[in-house]
Amino acid sequence: MRQEELQDLLNSMSLQEKIDQMLQLTGDFYEDADSVMTGPAGELGVSEEDIRMAGSILGTAGAKKLKHIQKNYMEKQPHHIPMLFMMDVIHGMKTIFPIPLGQGATFEPELSRKCAQAAAKEAAVSGLHVTFAPMADLVRDARWGRVMESTGEDTYLNGLFAAAMVKGFQGDDLSSPEQVAACVKHFAAYGGAQAGRDYNTVELSEHTLREYYLPAYKAGIDAGAALVMTSFNTVNGIPASTNEWLMRHILRDEMGFDGVLISDFSAILETVAHGYAKDSREAAVKALEAGVDIDMMTNVYAANLKKLAEEGSVPISLIDQCVMRILELKNKLGLFENPYKGADEEKEKEVILCKEHRALAREAAVKSFVLLKNDGILPLDMEKRTAFIGPFTDDKQIKSSWSFTGDDKDCVTIKEAAENVFDSRRTTYLKGAPVIGADSRLIGFKLAGFQEDAPKEITAEEERQMLCEAIEAAEKADVVIMPLGEHYLQSGEATSRGEITVPEVQMELFRAVRAVNPNIVVVLFSGRPLDIREISKKARAVLEVWRPGTEGGNAIVDVLTGKADPSGKLPMSFPYCVGQVPVHYNEFFTGRPNRKGMQERFRSRYIDIPNAPLYPFGYGLSYTDFSVSSVTLDKEEMGPEDIIRAGVRIKNTGTRSGTETVQLYLRDTVASVVRPVRELKGFEKVTLEPGEEREIVFTIDESMLRFHTEKNGFASETGDFLVFIGTDSTTENQAHFCLCR
Amino acid sequence: MRQEELQDLLNSMSLQEKIDQMLQLTGDFYEDADSVMTGPAGELGVSEEDIRMAGSILGTAGAKKLKHIQKNYMEKQPHHIPMLFMMDVIHGMKTIFPIPLGQGATFEPELSRKCAQAAAKEAAVSGLHVTFAPMADLVRDARWGRVMESTGEDTYLNGLFAAAMVKGFQGDDLSSPEQVAACVKHFAAYGGAQAGRDYNTVELSEHTLREYYLPAYKAGIDAGAALVMTSFNTVNGIPASTNEWLMRHILRDEMGFDGVLISDFSAILETVAHGYAKDSREAAVKALEAGVDIDMMTNVYAANLKKLAEEGSVPISLIDQCVMRILELKNKLGLFENPYKGADEEKEKEVILCKEHRALAREAAVKSFVLLKNDGILPLDMEKRTAFIGPFTDDKQIKSSWSFTGDDKDCVTIKEAAENVFDSRRTTYLKGAPVIGADSRLIGFKLAGFQEDAPKEITAEEERQMLCEAIEAAEKADVVIMPLGEHYLQSGEATSRGEITVPEVQMELFRAVRAVNPNIVVVLFSGRPLDIREISKKARAVLEVWRPGTEGGNAIVDVLTGKADPSGKLPMSFPYCVGQVPVHYNEFFTGRPNRKGMQERFRSRYIDIPNAPLYPFGYGLSYTDFSVSSVTLDKEEMGPEDIIRAGVRIKNTGTRSGTETVQLYLRDTVASVVRPVRELKGFEKVTLEPGEEREIVFTIDESMLRFHTEKNGFASETGDFLVFIGTDSTTENQAHFCLCR
Repeated sequence: MRQEELQDLLNSMSLQEKIDQMLQLTGDFYEDADSVMTGPAGELGVSEEDIRMAGSILGTAGAKKLKHIQKNYMEKQPHHIPMLFMMDVIHGMKTIFPIPLGQGATFEPELSRKCAQAAAKEAAVSGLHVTFAPMADLVRDARWGRVMESTGEDTYLNGLFAAAMVKGFQGDDLSSPEQVAACVKHFAAYGGAQAGRDYNTVELSEHTLREYYLPAYKAGIDAGAALVMTSFNTVNGIPASTNEWLMRHILRDEMGFDGVLISDFSAILETVAHGYAKDSREAAVKALEAGVDIDMMTNVYAANLKKLAEEGSVPISLIDQCVMRILELKNKLGLFENPYKGADEEKEKEVILCKEHRALAREAAVKSFVLLKNDGILPLDMEKRTAFIGPFTDDKQIKSSWSFTGDDKDCVTIKEAAENVFDSRRTTYLKGAPVIGADSRLIGFKLAGFQEDAPKEITAEEERQMLCEAIEAAEKADVVIMPLGEHYLQSGEATSRGEITVPEVQMELFRAVRAVNPNIVVVLFSGRPLDIREISKKARAVLEVWRPGTEGGNAIVDVLTGKADPSGKLPMSFPYCVGQVPVHYNEFFTGRPNRKGMQERFRSRYIDIPNAPLYPFGYGLSYTDFSVSSVTLDKEEMGPEDIIRAGVRIKNTGTRSGTETVQLYLRDTVASVVRPVRELKGFEKVTLEPGEEREIVFTIDESMLRFHTEKNGFASETGDFLVFIGTDSTTENQAHFCLCR
Repeated sequence: MRQEELQDLLNSMSLQEKIDQMLQLTGDFYEDADSVMTGPAGELGVSEEDIRMAGSILGTAGAKKLKHIQKNYMEKQPHHIPMLFMMDVIHGMKTIFPIPLGQGATFEPELSRKCAQAAAKEAAVSGLHVTFAPMADLVRDARWGRVMESTGEDTYLNGLFAAAMVKGFQGDDLSSPEQVAACVKHFAAYGGAQAGRDYNTVELSEHTLREYYLPAYKAGIDAGAALVMTSFNTVNGIPASTNEWLMRHILRDEMGFDGVLISDFSAILETVAHGYAKDSREAAVKALEAGVDIDMMTNVYAANLKKLAEEGSVPISLIDQCVMRILELKNKLGLFENPYKGADEEKEKEVILCKEHRALAREAAVKSFVLLKNDGILPLDMEKRTAFIGPFTDDKQIKSSWSFTGDDKDCVTIKEAAENVFDSRRTTYLKGAPVIGADSRLIGFKLAGFQEDAPKEITAEEERQMLCEAIEAAEKADVVIMPLGEHYLQSGEATSRGEITVPEVQMELFRAVRAVNPNIVVVLFSGRPLDIREISKKARAVLEVWRPGTEGGNAIVDVLTGKADPSGKLPMSFPYCVGQVPVHYNEFFTGRPNRKGMQERFRSRYIDIPNAPLYPFGYGLSYTDFSVSSVTLDKEEMGPEDIIRAGVRIKNTGTRSGTETVQLYLRDTVASVVRPVRELKGFEKVTLEPGEEREIVFTIDESMLRFHTEKNGFASETGDFLVFIGTDSTTENQAHFCLCR
C-alpha cells in the first residue's frame, strides 16, 4: 500500500477503530474466536468490541490457528485491516538455540544473525509477524535473572549482536514470508535494576546512560528494527513507558527511531503502581504524550483514549501518529497484500526443526561453550571408564524458561548424545541428585500457575539413594563428567537470586564424588554467571554450557570428546562471589586504583576478597595453546582523519587445531569525563592449525575514540591512548599512541 | 580582626605566601620543628620553604607540641599569620563515644551535640582548631567499611545529626577556647560507592543526588559548619575535588556555603589517577577553578599555582578568594588574637577523660545499643551462673579504627565492668576464640605500616585449647553471654568487605557453645550491619553494641543487667544477606511491587531470599512493651499554609520503665517523579513508666511534603499522602490526608 493510501485509510477510520489498533491482548482471548468474552476479559476492563477489534495479539502461534483468527478478525474489522501477531521468539522458535548470553560468548554476531534468521523462518511459517527480540540491555549484575536474555556486559558487543539479530529476523524485506519484524528492548536501561532485583529502580548518571546503556539499542535501531519496547523501570525517576524525555527526545529525535513503540507487558498501567500516574486515565495521557503506540495487555488506552480525545484532553493528532506507525508496520510486513503472510501448515512441517536448523543449533551451542578450566583432562580419553553424574545428565530441560515456544521433548540430552559415541561397556549415566533440593527456593512459582514446572519433590530417602549410587559409580570410573547447574526456572524474567550458587544439593553431590574421584569435569548449566569458586578449585575442568538449547547434548558431547573445540569467551564477568557485584571489566578509573600485586591499604579494594572477578570478560580456553606477539602500531600519532593499524601475530603453539578470539581494547588516558580502564573496540576470531601463525590487524580511527564528553556530546579528545590486544580483557599486551588535532 | 584588616593583610601577602596558606601537610613535618626537611618531604615534592610556611597541618595534637609548632611557625611567617591545626576527631578525642553509626541509633541528635561538645573541649585543650567531622554521607551498602562513620541510611536523620554535631563542635562562638571548627564531609555522595568498594565510582541520577544525598550536607552547612571537605569519588563522571558544577554551582551558589573547602587527603592529586587531570599542573587549575581552598597533603597547589598565576593561566583573584576564606577562618577561630587558642597543658589533664565525659560516653553507649532479639532472657537474672565467652569479653579494642586519637588502655572492657557487678563465684570470663582467624583476610594492612594492629596469629593448638575451655565453661553455666563481632580493623576507611559476616572462627565458637547451652545472649560488636541470620535464629537475645568506645564495657553491663534499658533503633537496615545490598527502607516504588504475604512470580523480588532486610531501619526492642494506638489526624485536607496534627497514644504495657522512639513516616502516593515507599519525617523519644500512656502529636506542614520535582526543583505537589506512625519503618499504622491548593 502506498503512503497516500495508508493516509486515506487512517482518515477513514473512526476514533474507536484507531484506538483499538493501539490495543494488544494475549492470544487467550482468541483461542476460541467465536467466544472472546470468556476468560480474562472482564478482569481486564476492556469491552467485547475492543477485544474483537484489537490491532494485535501476542503469545499465540501456529499457522492454522492464526490464519483462522486473522480471517475472523478481518471479516469484522470495518476496514478489513489485518491483525498483527507477535510473540517472544527469543532464542529460537521450535529449534532452540543457546540463550543470548551464550550467543554473546560466541563473539560471532554473524552466527546469531543466522540463528535469528532460522528462528524467523520457523516463526513466520507459524503465522507470526513480530518477535520481541533482541534484548539489547546492558547487564552488570549476575543476580538479575534476565541476564540470560542479554549478550552481556559490553555495550559494543551487545550492539553488534542486536544489529545482527535484527538483520536475521527481518532480512532485507519485511514482507518476505520468511521474515518477522524485530523489536529492540527494553528501552531503556532495564538491566540496571538496583540490587539485581527485577523491575527495580535504575539509578544512573546521564553520561553512563548515554555512553554505556543506550548505544546497543541504537545499534539495533540503526539496523532497521521495526519496533522498540519500553522498559518496566524508571529512568531518572520517571517510568520509561511514560517518559517523554526518553521516548520523544532520545528515542525519536536523537536516535531517529520512527517505528512502532510498544509497551512491555502491562507497563503503561504499572505507572500507577509506580505512583507516577494517578490512575489509568492519567497513564493513558502520559504514555500517549511519550509516544507509546501500542498498549500491551492493559485497558489503559482502550478505556480512556476515546473520552480523552473527545473532550480535548489529548490531541487526536497524537493518536493518529501512533496508528499511522502501526499501519505502516502492517504495510511493511505486507499484510495488506497477504494478511496470512508466511503462515503455512505444510511449511511448518518442513521448516520447523529441520536438519539445517538443528545443525545450526548444534554449531551455535558448541561455539557458545566457554572452557573455564582444563588441566589437560579434556578432551576426554575415550578409552577410559567414564561416569556421567549429575542432574543434567539426561535432562531435557536444557532450554531456558524464556523459550516456551519450543518443546523439551525435542531437546537432545547429554546421555542421548553420548550413547552414540561412548562405549556403553565403559560408560554409566546417573542423575545423582535433583536439580534443586529442599535448600533452594523458587518463591512465587507455585502461585503463578507454574505448578507443572516446579521441581518435583523427592523424598530424602530417594535423594540418599541417588547419592549412594553416584558415589559407587564415581569410585568405579576413571573420569567423572558432572553436568551440574541452575534449574531452568532459576534464570529468566523475575528470577533474581540473592545467592548465585549452584544449588546446595548438587554441591553435596559434587563434594561426595570429589571425595572418591578427583578426575572431575564439570559441565555447568546456567543462565547467569555463578559463584563457582569451589568447583573451579576442585574440578579438573569446567565447561560453561549456559542453557544450550535443542542440540545441547550433541554439542556438549562434541566438545567433551574433542570432535569440536571450545572457543567461547565470557561476555560477562564471573564474579568471585555475590558480594562483589556489580562487577564488570570496563569500570571507571578511581583516584586510588588497586595496584596489581600490591596489597596496599588505602586503595579501592575489598579487604577480604579480590577486586577481580573469578573469570573475566573475554576469557575462555581452547584445547590448543596460542601465543600472541607484542602489539605493533604503524604510527604513534594520528590526526582526526588518520587511521592507525594495530597488529599482533598470533600463533597456535599447541598440537591441535583451534580457534582464538583476538580482542582489541582501548584506554583513553585523560579526558574531560573519567573514562573506563579499558573498552572493547574490536575482535577477530581466527582458527589456526598447529604451528600456524597469522597477523591480525585492527584499524583504529577517530570514531572509535569518541565518548560522551562533559560539554560536547559524543566526541573524541586529543591525548594519549593505550591499545591492548590479547585473548581476554585483562591482557597487558599494549602499545601507545596519541591523537592530535 | 576586622574584615578590612584581613583584606589589608591579604593585599600585603606575596603570591608565594598566599599559596602556602593553601597547603596542608601532616604533622610529621613539624614533629621536630627545627628540621622539617627530614622524612616524607622529598617524596612529596614540596620545597623546604613551602613546608615551613604551610598554612595548616593535620594529624598532630597535644597542647605543648602544638604551641611549640605555632610559635616557631609564626616567628618565621612573614606576616606572623598563625597556623591552623586540624585532626580527625570523629567520635571523641580521648574520651571515645560510640561510632557515628551507633550515635545514629540513639535517635537523639542532642546527645550527639553533647558528645561533639565534649570532644571539642578535649580537642581544643590539646591545641586543635578544626576537626574533620561530621561525616554526613548517606550510606546504603553495608559492604562499605565507612558506614561506621555515618549516622545511617536516612538523609533526614543524617541531617539532624550533622547539624547537631556541628553545633556541638563549634558552639556559638568559634573563638571560644573550648570549641573547634567543624568540617562537613565528604562532598558529595562518597557513600554511594559502587559495589560498596571504597573510593569507587558513584552512579546516581541527579534527582537522587539532590534529594537523598545532598540534604544532610546542607543541614550541616546551615548549622554553620566552617569547613566542607571534598570527596574522593566522581560525581556524574567528574572527580568531586575538581568538579566545578558541584563545588561552585551546588555548594557555593545553591547551598550558600562561604567557608573553607578542603580536599580530602591527596584528593586533588588523585584526579590524575582518575584520568581526569593530565598532571599535577592541570589538577591545580581544575581544583582552583572548582574553588577548593586547601590542598591536603599533596604538592599540587604548592608546586604549580605560582607559575600558573604568574603566566596568567589562573587568575590571581581565585587564589585571593581561597586565601581570604582561610584567613577568615583563622580570624573566626580567634587565632589572630590568641594563636594558641585553647591549648593548655594544665587543662588537658583536667578535661581529658574527665568524669563528666566518661559519664556522657557511658550514656551515649547505652543509648546506642539496639536490642535486636530478646525472648525474655534479658535483663539477666543475676542469680544464675553466667559465662562470658567471646573474644570481646576482655578486649580493649572496642573503639574504632577511626578513633586513633584515643587510647585502648582507657577503654573499660566488659570483664572489667562485669567484675564490679557479677558475683565472681558464679561468673566466668573466657575469650573462646581470637577475633579473626586464619579464615579472615585483612588485605592491605600488613603492607601499610599497620603491622602492630594486625591480629596476632595464634596457633591452631592454642585455638583448639581456647575452644575446649569455652565449651567446658558453657556447659557449667546457666547463661552464656557471647561478645562477638567484627575486628576493629574490619570497619572504617578502606575496609570494604565482600562478606558481611561475623568471622568464621567466632561462628565456630558460637556453634560449639550453642551445642551445649541454648541460653545464649550475643553482644554484637560491629562497624556495619552484618548478616546475622544464624545468630539471630539460634541465640536467645542479640544486643548490637557497634563499637561503643571508652565506656563500652560499663554500658554493656548496664544494659545486660537491666540497670539501663536498651532503646536504640537501627539507623541502617541489617540486610538478610550480602546478596541483598544495597537495601534501604526508603526505596522507590516499582511498577511491580512485591505484595506482603503474596508469593507472586512477576514481582520485583528475589526467588530465593526475601526483599525485606533481616532487621529494618528504625527497629529496636525495649525490655518493656509498648502499644501504639491508631493514627488520628485533626483534618484530612490541608492547604499549603495549613498544618495537620497527626497523633497516636502510646502506652507502656509492660512491667518496667522503658523508652520508645515513635516514628513518623510519610508517603506521597502520586507525584511527577517516582517517590519512595515512605520517608522518615519526624520522631519522638518517650520514656514511660509501666502503665503510663502519652499522646504524641506530630505537626505536618507543607515543607515536609516537598521533594525534587521533575520541573520545579524542590516543591510539593497536591494529592494524597499517607501518614505512618509506629515504632519502626515497617509500621502499617496509617492515616490519609490530601494536600490541596
